[in-house]
Amino acid sequence: MEKKIAVIKGDGIGPDVVEQAMAVLDRVSEKHGHKFVYTEVLAGGASLDKYGVPLTDETVKVCKASDAVLLGAMGGPKWDTLPGNLRPEAGLLSIRNQLGLFANLRPAVMYQELSGACPLKESVTGSEGLDFVVVRELTGGAYFGKRDTGSDENGMWAYDTMFYTENEIRRIVRVGFELAMKRDKRLTSVDKANVLDSSRLWRKVTLEVAKDYPEVRLNHLYVDNCAMQLVINPRQFDVIVTENLFGDIISDESSMITGSIGMLPSASMGSTSFGMYEPIHGSAPDIAGQDKANPIATILSVAMMLKLSFGLDDEAAEIEAAVKKVLEEGYRTGDIMSEGKTLVGTNEMGRLIRDRI
Amino acid sequence: MEKKIAVIKGDGIGPDVVEQAMAVLDRVSEKHGHKFVYTEVLAGGASLDKYGVPLTDETVKVCKASDAVLLGAMGGPKWDTLPGNLRPEAGLLSIRNQLGLFANLRPAVMYQELSGACPLKESVTGSEGLDFVVVRELTGGAYFGKRDTGSDENGMWAYDTMFYTENEIRRIVRVGFELAMKRDKRLTSVDKANVLDSSRLWRKVTLEVAKDYPEVRLNHLYVDNCAMQLVINPRQFDVIVTENLFGDIISDESSMITGSIGMLPSASMGSTSFGMYEPIHGSAPDIAGQDKANPIATILSVAMMLKLSFGLDDEAAEIEAAVKKVLEEGYRTGDIMSEGKTLVGTNEMGRLIRDRI
Ligand SMILES: CC(C)[C@H](C(=O)O)[C@@H](O)C(=O)O
Ligand SMILES: CC(C)[C@H](C(=O)O)[C@@H](O)C(=O)O
Repeated sequence: MEKKIAVIKGDGIGPDVVEQAMAVLDRVSEKHGHKFVYTEVLAGGASLDKYGVPLTDETVKVCKASDAVLLGAMGGPKWDTLPGNLRPEAGLLSIRNQLGLFANLRPAVMYQELSGACPLKESVTGSEGLDFVVVRELTGGAYFGKRDTGSDENGMWAYDTMFYTENEIRRIVRVGFELAMKRDKRLTSVDKANVLDSSRLWRKVTLEVAKDYPEVRLNHLYVDNCAMQLVINPRQFDVIVTENLFGDIISDESSMITGSIGMLPSASMGSTSFGMYEPIHGSAPDIAGQDKANPIATILSVAMMLKLSFGLDDEAAEIEAAVKKVLEEGYRTGDIMSEGKTLVGTNEMGRLIRDRI
Repeated sequence: MEKKIAVIKGDGIGPDVVEQAMAVLDRVSEKHGHKFVYTEVLAGGASLDKYGVPLTDETVKVCKASDAVLLGAMGGPKWDTLPGNLRPEAGLLSIRNQLGLFANLRPAVMYQELSGACPLKESVTGSEGLDFVVVRELTGGAYFGKRDTGSDENGMWAYDTMFYTENEIRRIVRVGFELAMKRDKRLTSVDKANVLDSSRLWRKVTLEVAKDYPEVRLNHLYVDNCAMQLVINPRQFDVIVTENLFGDIISDESSMITGSIGMLPSASMGSTSFGMYEPIHGSAPDIAGQDKANPIATILSVAMMLKLSFGLDDEAAEIEAAVKKVLEEGYRTGDIMSEGKTLVGTNEMGRLIRDRI
C-alpha cells in the first residue's frame, strides 16, 4: 500500500516526537511492504517565523493532496503576544476548518503500568484502569460562530455565537454512535439543554439519530454534571459525544484523569478516511530538542492513522502492542518516570518501540 | 439585630434541609438576641404545582423586600418534561436575574474528616485538604444572551450568544479581587481568550482591574487547562473568577474534587449586602422527606448569610465551628458515612449542630 502523508512537525518538542513517529511508520512499512511518502510543511509558530502567518495556502494544499496529516504540536510563549489572528492557535483552527475535520476523537486510556500517575484513587478508577473516547465536534459552535467586539455609550462589549445546524449535529453524533457500536455500545451525549437553545437542538437531533442505533444505550448529561461524573465515576463512560467548546473542556479533563497525558493520541476526521493525527500534549518548549520528550502519544497517533485513514488495523495493533511491551519492560521517559523504572530519552524510547514491531 | 429572610424551601429534600438551617438560625438569634423574621414563598417545582409557573411576581417581591433569601433545592424529574420556560431551572435563572445576583460564590473545601470521600489521591490534594473559592458570573454570557431556533432550506439551526459588556466583567472580576484580598491574595481568571472575543474582553478588563489590586497575584488559565489543573494540582487555587458557563462547569468540578458535595454552601450576591444562599447539591427527590438528607450544606449556607448579608462574622464562625465539632465527634449522615462513624438522620444532625452553638 502506498500513502501520502503531510507532516507538520510543529513547534517545541513537535519535531522531536514526530521524528520518532515517522521512524515507527518506516519500520511498519519496511516490515509489511507499504510505502509512506512524506511531505513536510509548516504551520503554527514555525510558519509564523518563516512566512509571517500561522498557516499558508501551500500547507493546506499539500494536506488536501495527502491521505493523512501527521502533526506534532503548535505554539509556544514566543508567539503568545501576537494578535489573535496571528497566533499559532489561529493556524490550528483554520487548518481544522479548511480540511473539514469536524470530528475530533480523543481516547482517554489509563495504562495499568502508569496507574501511579493517575490523580484519582483506585476506588474511583477501578483496578482495570480507564478506557473511553471523547468525540468532540471541531468545526462549529462558538469557535466558528459570528463574533464581534465594539463599544457604545456604556463602554466595550464583545460576543461569540454558539451556532449549530441540525446537519452539523447529526454528522458528529453519528460518529459517536458508530464508534459506540464498535466498542461497548454506550454513548453519553453532553449538552446544556436546560439552558441553551443550541443544546436543545443538539439533544433533539441526538434522539433522532438514536433511532438508527437501537443497540446503543444512550444517555444525556449536562456538561456541568459530566465534569463532575468524570471525577467521581469515570468508569461509566464508553463514548462521550459533545459540541466544540464543551468538548474542549471535557476532553482535556478526561485526558488528565487518566494520568497519562504524554501517552494520549488524537485524530481529527472529516467525512472521508482522510484525517489529521496529533498527540494531545502541548509543545513543551522548555524541553524541546533535548531528547527528553515522550514520543509515545505521537507514535500512538500514527497507529490511529494506520487504522482510521489506511484501514491497516493489524499494523496499528502491532504498534500499540509494542508500546505496551516497552512499558511492561519498565522503560520510561522523564514525564512518566517512577521508582525502579529505567529512564530513557525520546530517541531511545522510539528505538525500543520500533525494535518490538 | 432584626433581619427579614425570604425562605424558599424548594423541592425534594429542600424542605428537609431548610428546616434544619432555620432551626440553626433560631438558635443563633436566641443566643445573641437577634431577630430573624421568615417569610415563606414558593419557586421551582412547588410553584409550578401551585401556580403553573416556576416563579411568580409575588415571590420576587417578597425576596426584594427581604435582607436575604434562603433557598433549598429546585427541580426534579416530575417537572423535567415540561417545556424549557416552564421548568424549575427557568425559575432559578429568572430569580437570579430579577434580583440582580451577578456574583455566585462557591467555596470548595475539603474537610479533613471526610478525606476518605475525596476522589483525588492524597498526593494531589496534600494532607491539609483543599480550600478555595470559585466566583462565577451569574447573570450574563450564554445564559442570558440572545438566542433563537429556526429553520431554513438546510434544516433547523439554533444559537446562543455569549455576550458581555465591560461593566459586567468589571464588577464580577472586582468581586474576585476583593475576595482574594481577604484570603491568600491569589486570583486565577479563567477564560478562553485564545479563541473567544468575549474572553479577550474578559482578559483585557481583568488586567485593568488588576491595577487596583497590586497585592493580588493574578494569573490566567484557559478553561480547558483549568479543568485539567483542578484534577492534577488543585492546591494552586485560592480564588477563581470566571464567566457564567465556564463557572457552571468549573465550580461543579471544584465541588466534586473536594469529595464533600453534601457539605458545600453557596452565595449569590448583587452590588449590596443582599444575597441568596443555597446548598450546591440538588433536590435528591429519591430521599425527600425520609430524614436522610445531609443538612450541613444548607446550615453552612446560613453561616455565609450571617457573614455576607448581615455582617455577623462571629455568629457565622460559631456555626462553622459547630459543624466541624460534630464531624470530629464522628457523626455522619448517610451520604458521608464511613466505617466506625455514627450514622444520624437529617433532624439529629441539625440538633447536634444546634447543641454545639
Ligand atoms: C489551542 C486551542 C485553540 C485548541 C482548542 O481549543 O481547540 C486546543 O485547546 C485544543 O483542544 O486542541
Ligand atoms: C439548573 C441550572 C440552570 C443551573 C445553572 O446552570 O446555572 C445549575 O447547574 C447551577 O449551577 O446552579
